[in-house]
Amino acid sequence: MEFGTEQMARLAELGAATVYEAHGQKGAIDPAIKPLDPRMTMAGRAVTVKLAPADNWFIHAALLEAGPGDVLVVDIGGFTQAGPWGDVLTLAAQTRGLAGLVVDGAVRDSATIIAEGWPVFVRGTCIRRTTKVQRGEINVPVVIGGVVVNPGDILIGDADGLVVVPGDEGPAALEEAEAREAKEEWQREQIRAGVSTLDLLGLPRP
Amino acid sequence: MEFGTEQMARLAELGAATVYEAHGQKGAIDPAIKPLDPRMTMAGRAVTVKLAPADNWFIHAALLEAGPGDVLVVDIGGFTQAGPWGDVLTLAAQTRGLAGLVVDGAVRDSATIIAEGWPVFVRGTCIRRTTKVQRGEINVPVVIGGVVVNPGDILIGDADGLVVVPGDEGPAALEEAEAREAKEEWQREQIRAGVSTLDLLGLPRP
Amino acid sequence: MEFGTEQMARLAELGAATVYEAHGQKGAIDPAIKPLDPRMTMAGRAVTVKLAPADNWFIHAALLEAGPGDVLVVDIGGFTQAGPWGDVLTLAAQTRGLAGLVVDGAVRDSATIIAEGWPVFVRGTCIRRTTKVQRGEINVPVVIGGVVVNPGDILIGDADGLVVVPGDEGPAALEEAEAREAKEEWQREQIRAGVSTLDLLGLPRP
Amino acid sequence: MEFGTEQMARLAELGAATVYEAHGQKGAIDPAIKPLDPRMTMAGRAVTVKLAPADNWFIHAALLEAGPGDVLVVDIGGFTQAGPWGDVLTLAAQTRGLAGLVVDGAVRDSATIIAEGWPVFVRGTCIRRTTKVQRGEINVPVVIGGVVVNPGDILIGDADGLVVVPGDEGPAALEEAEAREAKEEWQREQIRAGVSTLDLLGLPRP
Amino acid sequence: MEFGTEQMARLAELGAATVYEAHGQKGAIDPAIKPLDPRMTMAGRAVTVKLAPADNWFIHAALLEAGPGDVLVVDIGGFTQAGPWGDVLTLAAQTRGLAGLVVDGAVRDSATIIAEGWPVFVRGTCIRRTTKVQRGEINVPVVIGGVVVNPGDILIGDADGLVVVPGDEGPAALEEAEAREAKEEWQREQIRAGVSTLDLLGLPRP
Amino acid sequence: MEFGTEQMARLAELGAATVYEAHGQKGAIDPAIKPLDPRMTMAGRAVTVKLAPADNWFIHAALLEAGPGDVLVVDIGGFTQAGPWGDVLTLAAQTRGLAGLVVDGAVRDSATIIAEGWPVFVRGTCIRRTTKVQRGEINVPVVIGGVVVNPGDILIGDADGLVVVPGDEGPAALEEAEAREAKEEWQREQIRAGVSTLDLLGLPRP
Repeated sequence: MEFGTEQMARLAELGAATVYEAHGQKGAIDPAIKPLDPRMTMAGRAVTVKLAPADNWFIHAALLEAGPGDVLVVDIGGFTQAGPWGDVLTLAAQTRGLAGLVVDGAVRDSATIIAEGWPVFVRGTCIRRTTKVQRGEINVPVVIGGVVVNPGDILIGDADGLVVVPGDEGPAALEEAEAREAKEEWQREQIRAGVSTLDLLGLPRP
Repeated sequence: MEFGTEQMARLAELGAATVYEAHGQKGAIDPAIKPLDPRMTMAGRAVTVKLAPADNWFIHAALLEAGPGDVLVVDIGGFTQAGPWGDVLTLAAQTRGLAGLVVDGAVRDSATIIAEGWPVFVRGTCIRRTTKVQRGEINVPVVIGGVVVNPGDILIGDADGLVVVPGDEGPAALEEAEAREAKEEWQREQIRAGVSTLDLLGLPRP
Repeated sequence: MEFGTEQMARLAELGAATVYEAHGQKGAIDPAIKPLDPRMTMAGRAVTVKLAPADNWFIHAALLEAGPGDVLVVDIGGFTQAGPWGDVLTLAAQTRGLAGLVVDGAVRDSATIIAEGWPVFVRGTCIRRTTKVQRGEINVPVVIGGVVVNPGDILIGDADGLVVVPGDEGPAALEEAEAREAKEEWQREQIRAGVSTLDLLGLPRP
Repeated sequence: MEFGTEQMARLAELGAATVYEAHGQKGAIDPAIKPLDPRMTMAGRAVTVKLAPADNWFIHAALLEAGPGDVLVVDIGGFTQAGPWGDVLTLAAQTRGLAGLVVDGAVRDSATIIAEGWPVFVRGTCIRRTTKVQRGEINVPVVIGGVVVNPGDILIGDADGLVVVPGDEGPAALEEAEAREAKEEWQREQIRAGVSTLDLLGLPRP
Repeated sequence: MEFGTEQMARLAELGAATVYEAHGQKGAIDPAIKPLDPRMTMAGRAVTVKLAPADNWFIHAALLEAGPGDVLVVDIGGFTQAGPWGDVLTLAAQTRGLAGLVVDGAVRDSATIIAEGWPVFVRGTCIRRTTKVQRGEINVPVVIGGVVVNPGDILIGDADGLVVVPGDEGPAALEEAEAREAKEEWQREQIRAGVSTLDLLGLPRP
Repeated sequence: MEFGTEQMARLAELGAATVYEAHGQKGAIDPAIKPLDPRMTMAGRAVTVKLAPADNWFIHAALLEAGPGDVLVVDIGGFTQAGPWGDVLTLAAQTRGLAGLVVDGAVRDSATIIAEGWPVFVRGTCIRRTTKVQRGEINVPVVIGGVVVNPGDILIGDADGLVVVPGDEGPAALEEAEAREAKEEWQREQIRAGVSTLDLLGLPRP
């Protein structure tokens, strides 16, 4: 099964909760990492970078490794007291065709980013400066919200948060998510017809 | 005084802060429990359920005890690392005519719920799965945001958070809230006319 | 350089992150203090008040010291379990022409305030009552989100958070922020033309 | 079965975890409420008091309702930015023979209390003052660490935290805890003899 | 009144809570800043330094400004994900005769510091490295646990936390704390004689 | 270079901060994961297990994979509202010769464990029960305090927290830590002789 732009967009549409539930119930990232705006949805492949707190030299370097459909995934160990990403980097990422940004940390210029509608998932916002002197690591395994993300992994995010799927499991995840969506649509019909969720799921009455 | 759908809707309109302030300044729930969308407002009677973390069997069972105008009130002890409620349960609750949901914990499918506009008050969102094996307790006193909620209590919520009113105090709460609203409207007129709030409230100048 | 209403409005437009970055990278307030609505922006001069937790007598008194273009800055030591400010005080502040409110604490009636669009920056919302008996201090240095704010200081806020600029540095801050904005606009053009941010900033390739 | 000082002391000795596990796995209080010193252990009957934040008039009043073997249980809604209890109140409580203190909030003079070895369970310590003007409620149901505590309930605490047992279930809790302790002693012997815990508990090998 | 080593030691002995209560109930620092060991007590004059997160160059520089009886007071804005102070700096400070260290942040080598018994008050411990390249500010007003500390201010700390007294108010603070201690000793005698705290403080019975 | 029990004990003695600083300044685990008692020190090889919240079946299973000198490393995603490990499991681990336990979560029976002096590093304590039904994963990469820990990695812990060293880098880490310790001893001599840390480290005077 081919897995390109269209398939990735469909994963974003199906949403993080459905993909997670359908594909093995694994890879759920700490929901404290949220989209800047609840209307943002995203799916793409991870280009990863690991930073020291309050330094963004290697974000600029990592951006050169990322292209159309990629998600830049930045591990700052949850540090939210500096904003290593703002509107200029957002424009640079959009220009390169990136699908979105995930930071286990904070960004600045959030109003501009929300206005652009470009998907950014973060712990918070902060205007404090960063230095540009400390080396980081690009395309190594990183930890985001308590979960390991490898380069090439697929990240799906929406208002609920983020799920990560191993890079070669995209087709399986999509197929299973479609099946679950179909099943949930059937469940919705049953519920509209008056069936209780207890009966629908075959749960015993207490 | 009769106390039906119309009266309940009026309580929601008057809002949590006014009802709280007017009716004895008690029952304020920890404001960390918030609506998924700040535009949500809600008033209804509590059907309560107490769960172990990460298991939702008894939510399905409790739903059968709730009907039009009820608010399902779910005590998970503040646990936010699993989402025991999603869009299918939301549809089931809407179909049964429930007035809303309160969870001292988290839900998933928040974008869909926000799009529906159905009132849901939670500590957070999470896509992580739950099991369906552990017994809970239905219609017992529960603790939500540090406050005891009994079955039949009235919950009023909006962007500020939630207040709980004992089940038989609805008419008194409504009457007092209307009186306060009238007084506040008079205060607003005075303020528009240039009176200071210090004088309006009879507070001494420092 | 004259520094009046127009200049203040321009600072709000340039935004907290740009002013902070351009004017010495200092005065960044803990971003946990956020606008009630991400669309709110604000700039104005601080009238400060220091309160004991859960008492608002001196807010009413401080309001009399504030007028057009002022921002009331309320230090409650981060206490978020009471709401010393609501819709009546909001109306009083709007009537007096205040530019906004900053509370290192919480407010109530947030839905009404959001509907009004009047800028309010807080740690949270809470409906719990306050007393009106404890003395506070007006127009003394206060601490907001870990940063000292003196009476007369200029506060600039938006979705990213707040920055404080010493009262006599308004013209310098504005000039530097305009220069930075111009430089960023030039950077944006370069980026649109395909230049990498690494080259743009003269950063070494790793 | 008689239930006096000796039985209460034995509950303290068996410890919170054993009583909780043996007696229905309920009543576990949020472990953020901890003894000032990990060596403190406690068991006694609850005399409850509910306070507004930062006011301790009703602690003084509630103390008069408590006597030998009682635990004063103070609900301040988790507020830790004032210390309504210090060394003078500790001496008064010791003089009256109280078994200990539980505060969902903070105390001061912790070094003196630790030196005395008198059991105090709190969220934190704070030297900030309280007023003595606001009415509280004595011997009503209160919420401590997310759990309802009724007057007369039995509280057992140690380094792990606190468990609450309904007032008339003391004999049953003691009997079950003794049985569990005996079973655990047998388990320890088996483990010392080389049996794995997997086999001991009859769990399947994965 | 002379105010030297002996007077400072007596302030430490009287303790933070007594000095705070006796001397105007002001200057209480957020109790999340605690001694590494509850047995540590401290009193001394502030030499202040303000740092960027994760850089300790200016701690080394500030140390040269501090001598016998001084307390080095380090404002890192609450950042606890790096440890800018360890056993070597502790030895250097002890050699220079410093009375102690306060960090609104973290330190490393805590076991060694506890073994030395030298007073260190911090938010936490952390082994993560710092750089030595960013300029700080020495002997400027800083913010520690939400409170402004000026160079020369007196800091008193123990297991309860810290209080700050303006530099020229040492004699007054000592006198008032002695008076309060005497009064509390008299209160203790009354309590031992059977007087209730309610009567002792002249509080009304509810 | 041989790397056995003696070398591991020496790593524990040198301590987490020294090993971290000497061996590449990497692998520092979130210091919120602390020893139950500040006197505990530990060094050993990781046997890892990943659990769902509030279920401990796979801890019992994982214990069978661990032997003398091993550290059981349990990833529960930071969940602290249940205690999956207590005194019986502690005895079982001691009997098997384990060097210690690390849980990104909570344990119970902490007083007994402290009395035993066996090293346990956790986020907190909790008496709440776990189920024994959910499958986990044994000896897979896990995330502890934001850092990836692989089976066979070496963990060194003390009062400051934990550092992880890749399994084959033990000899290098020990050699570098010894060198740093020697250098620090020389630095201490210089400091005792009156040299400032600024000069000792070759830092410029500001």
